[in-house]
Amino acid sequence: MVAIRVGVGRETAPGEQRVALVPDAVGRLRELGLEIVVESGAGTAAWHPDSAYGEAGAEVVSKAELYERADVIVTVRRPDTAALRAGQAVIGMLRPFADPGYVRELAVAGVTAIAFEGLPRTLSAAQTMDAMSSQDNIAGYKAAVLAADTYGRFFPLLVTAAGTARPAQVLVLGAGVAGLQAIGTARRLGAVVTGYDIRPEAEGEITSLGAQFLRLSAGPEGSGQGGYARALTEEEQRAQQEELVRHISRQDVVITTARVPGRRPPVLVTEAAVKGMRAGSVVVDMAASDLGGNVEGSRPGETIVTDGGVTVVGASELAAAMPAAASTAYSSNVRALLGHLVRDGALVIDTDDPIQAGVVLTHAGEIVHPAFGGAS
Amino acid sequence: MVAIRVGVGRETAPGEQRVALVPDAVGRLRELGLEIVVESGAGTAAWHPDSAYGEAGAEVVSKAELYERADVIVTVRRPDTAALRAGQAVIGMLRPFADPGYVRELAVAGVTAIAFEGLPRTLSAAQTMDAMSSQDNIAGYKAAVLAADTYGRFFPLLVTAAGTARPAQVLVLGAGVAGLQAIGTARRLGAVVTGYDIRPEAEGEITSLGAQFLRLSAGPEGSGQGGYARALTEEEQRAQQEELVRHISRQDVVITTARVPGRRPPVLVTEAAVKGMRAGSVVVDMAASDLGGNVEGSRPGETIVTDGGVTVVGASELAAAMPAAASTAYSSNVRALLGHLVRDGALVIDTDDPIQAGVVLTHAGEIVHPAFGGAS
Repeated sequence: MVAIRVGVGRETAPGEQRVALVPDAVGRLRELGLEIVVESGAGTAAWHPDSAYGEAGAEVVSKAELYERADVIVTVRRPDTAALRAGQAVIGMLRPFADPGYVRELAVAGVTAIAFEGLPRTLSAAQTMDAMSSQDNIAGYKAAVLAADTYGRFFPLLVTAAGTARPAQVLVLGAGVAGLQAIGTARRLGAVVTGYDIRPEAEGEITSLGAQFLRLSAGPEGSGQGGYARALTEEEQRAQQEELVRHISRQDVVITTARVPGRRPPVLVTEAAVKGMRAGSVVVDMAASDLGGNVEGSRPGETIVTDGGVTVVGASELAAAMPAAASTAYSSNVRALLGHLVRDGALVIDTDDPIQAGVVLTHAGEIVHPAFGGAS
Repeated sequence: MVAIRVGVGRETAPGEQRVALVPDAVGRLRELGLEIVVESGAGTAAWHPDSAYGEAGAEVVSKAELYERADVIVTVRRPDTAALRAGQAVIGMLRPFADPGYVRELAVAGVTAIAFEGLPRTLSAAQTMDAMSSQDNIAGYKAAVLAADTYGRFFPLLVTAAGTARPAQVLVLGAGVAGLQAIGTARRLGAVVTGYDIRPEAEGEITSLGAQFLRLSAGPEGSGQGGYARALTEEEQRAQQEELVRHISRQDVVITTARVPGRRPPVLVTEAAVKGMRAGSVVVDMAASDLGGNVEGSRPGETIVTDGGVTVVGASELAAAMPAAASTAYSSNVRALLGHLVRDGALVIDTDDPIQAGVVLTHAGEIVHPAFGGAS
């Protein structure tokens, strides 16, 4: 039996500081019989020097050598796709659902593409592998801390000799993993928090964190697949947006977290809503993307101050800004997924397995995932 | 009776976003019979537009007009000293104690200089005027939030499917107003916090916030004047520094707040101590100044990452980075002090009054404060 070799690449996306495997995880993967090669500098931005990988039993190599020798490349974001070769596998957050062309490209290249985005996250066996949740959890925490650091007043109520500072009013739109963690963190800091979600089951989760649940009278409701909210109709969206304007105007901080996989994020905070906020207010748009975000006018990776004095933070990929915690959690998801895919030291693709049916996009030159027309 | 005219200048120090008087305070000062003139743009960075001052009953004027017409100029930091004229008074945080030359300059110019730094802060009647405390309180909160936003891991303990994140270990050196607020805020966020101060009375205050008290065996102790710590001898400092190295090496985040009025801040975190910290750790030096800070190698207004991967934030004037809260609190201190100084619409200088004896530095062409050789 020849053990497969797992390669850890250095991330190349701008601002990306995570690494797919931390040194701690190297030893555990070697216990599964795997060899680990790491591109030099892969862990630097997450505070893991090459020497730490060497001590953990990995071999530190150049990028060319990594792509040549690894059987499986593990990455956080997309790898250097052009450098992949037929027969090689890649595991990462590949963002396949909005980009079928990319999936075709991987199939044509003969690459076995495995994407965390496809994980059946409601399946309990999959939870240790759920990188989308682990990163959302970190991003939600970071969003609340970033909002507190951006806001020019206190989050908590403070009574001092110089007067009483009222607590900040924080509204979190979307109460999935990221939203709930943002709610919990803003609550920890003493803010008065309101949470909103169209999924009816969110109410109990929001109120259990000590936050208020916002119910819209126009209130569209609906759960979608895989624990995500469903996409609303245009008319439902418009009614939602219009009613939110009034609630948003009373807030000091708004954090938006609404994403629907493979679609343009819904606009929850319109330009009119931002205009209605007081000067000094802060909006963090966690769904900011090149396709647009939850906030009209937000731009990914940029912080804008409007004429009305509202700071709009376009916060895509916030987990990347907490690289140590995010890499540790992501590593543990990678390790769990590899543990599931590897039998006797080899990667065994079997799309009858419900987890594999979700994550495996392409194999042996074919698209195998049904979302992209695969037969499985 | 002619009422005095209070002028609010626009701050000019780099990064200074505060304003000495917010629109809310304008109305209350007018009730004392005062007229208020505000330099155009004075409140912009703290989210108070000129129009808000106008609506509150102030007159918005040019800088030249302000310095010409105001009887009392209120400022956060030093005013444009060259623009002041004889007979005019200035109230602000003037940093007189390290700079007797500046005080002489104000006396020669015939300016009545009133500095918050001289306030007898332990006097209960002075507490509503205590700008040093109100700004330290804000700076301490901001230091903890900034540290959390800079640190690449969680402050709280978090148990998730991807594993358990241990809470951050935070050490706060100096437990005055700023230190205690930093301790309280880091605790709110779920960190495990240790506090250190040479004043024996600090132990109870630190532990009452749920933090541990760090007692050094070499332990110099001592309270100084006005609620500040006393300055240590060189030998005491060296013993303290050496013993702290070991404690600092176990921390993820260190926040230093030790200042002794009118002196160079003591070095608490040596280069060796920073070298002993793990990569990814964060140090916030709230005493960073051009004279040096509590952390060897810190630079005011700059964030440095050491070769060992430790981020050192030179955080002078953190209250200026929370301009809305800081200006509101400062305003309320200014209003209380003006209320004390003004009788029947006029500024009455009386250095037999214990509060005035502390804050009034110069008057009628003379240095009156005993710390600068004044007779009073």
